[in-house]
Amino acid sequence: MAVAWSEKASSMKALSLSLSPTSPPVFLTQDELKKVAAYKAVEFVESGMVLGLGTGSTAKHAVDRIGELLCQGKLNNIIGIPTSKKTQEQAISLGIPLSDLDTHPTIDLAIDGADEVDPQLNLVKGRGGSLLREKMVEGACKKFVCIVDESKLVKYLGGSGLALPIEVVPFCWKFTADKLGNLFRDSGCVARLRNDCKGDPFVTDNGNYIVDLFLKKDIGDLQVAGDAILRIAGVVEHGMFLDMATTVIVAGELGITIKNKP
Amino acid sequence: MAVAWSEKASSMKALSLSLSPTSPPVFLTQDELKKVAAYKAVEFVESGMVLGLGTGSTAKHAVDRIGELLCQGKLNNIIGIPTSKKTQEQAISLGIPLSDLDTHPTIDLAIDGADEVDPQLNLVKGRGGSLLREKMVEGACKKFVCIVDESKLVKYLGGSGLALPIEVVPFCWKFTADKLGNLFRDSGCVARLRNDCKGDPFVTDNGNYIVDLFLKKDIGDLQVAGDAILRIAGVVEHGMFLDMATTVIVAGELGITIKNKP
Repeated sequence: MAVAWSEKASSMKALSLSLSPTSPPVFLTQDELKKVAAYKAVEFVESGMVLGLGTGSTAKHAVDRIGELLCQGKLNNIIGIPTSKKTQEQAISLGIPLSDLDTHPTIDLAIDGADEVDPQLNLVKGRGGSLLREKMVEGACKKFVCIVDESKLVKYLGGSGLALPIEVVPFCWKFTADKLGNLFRDSGCVARLRNDCKGDPFVTDNGNYIVDLFLKKDIGDLQVAGDAILRIAGVVEHGMFLDMATTVIVAGELGITIKNKP
Repeated sequence: MAVAWSEKASSMKALSLSLSPTSPPVFLTQDELKKVAAYKAVEFVESGMVLGLGTGSTAKHAVDRIGELLCQGKLNNIIGIPTSKKTQEQAISLGIPLSDLDTHPTIDLAIDGADEVDPQLNLVKGRGGSLLREKMVEGACKKFVCIVDESKLVKYLGGSGLALPIEVVPFCWKFTADKLGNLFRDSGCVARLRNDCKGDPFVTDNGNYIVDLFLKKDIGDLQVAGDAILRIAGVVEHGMFLDMATTVIVAGELGITIKNKP
């Protein structure tokens, strides 16, 4: 997808890029937009920080950029806490020193993507399958900067019509999926086990399965819905990140928008 | 432990055993008391039922008894849903036909032990390590008969001073254990990883660890506490079974007491 890129005069805090106001529109692909958001987020990183390193196509750009700045000596004394085995491998390949939550239970800043962002900065995450570790790491952060392209903005969580992922134990997953579907029956919920490219159940880094919920309308009070999901024995974690993001950086057709939690 | 056995005149529904009122006291060990409770519970079983089969030293007696009655032809057409791999093996060895929750999402009756029972018939379970599967199965029952000896009765959950078990993902378990300990700091909570007999972390049937909470005083509203535990990313399930038991059979020094949920 190519979109026209220019600066945005927004009622929210709009930041300028290196483009001058008189530059002609530049056409950026969706992946380039993700990269723009990621690079902007890395501007929040300071030497000496403990950093939560996100997972997914947008977060990957941020991790690459952190590795680049370390290599150039523009950042130093960084400790990364990866949110997945995949990010761990990426960070190791870039020479980013790593640790874990047991050793560093408080994280200065995490940078990660999201699948959906609602107007209150609540997120859906986990379409990449790493929601549990992401929630553990990002729940331990002083500051959590979420980076998305504007296609991720929704009016309500689930509003994209794409998956709201739930991590479940493999034991009797169908029973658990049925309970999840029934819980949100009034929202037209369909619950489906996620499969990998071979048609086998997708297995998370924690050895669990993912049940994806597809919703036709909103599910009401999100905290209430979240508690109801977690009360189903067999559910390990849900992909709603409620009241966790402190900043959301949105890269869109008209520029970058930074939204801060009130 | 040997205790004197006789019948109890109780304000609750007290059932007589085969002993006559004039029998001299019989001394029963704790294991024999468990067996008495288990056999009494199996009286609720009828041919044709789908049965949840519990796990642990008390439930084992019930499963043995069901196998015996099937073998004698006094019960037939039973389908068992085991709550652990251990119980599954026991049931297979006894020739009890088995199924699972995916095939039988509604269970007529479950019989299982508990580690603690409070006056409202809320339970602590999981000291045997099977709390998640037990909760899934027993949450799917029309009737859940809990069987204990009287040493399991407590004024409040955690009141025995023994473990309140929490199943957690192995990833950064220490971080999760610290969060659990902090959650109930006001109740003097100490959180400890459970080890097996070799000193390695105890691993559940679902590949997870158990963090045991030891409490010095009650934790207040149990539903609120349960939700707070489940909201910690890294927690899979807790061992409080709230408002789930429909009947508790208590075998004690003075006889059997049957408590029904109001």
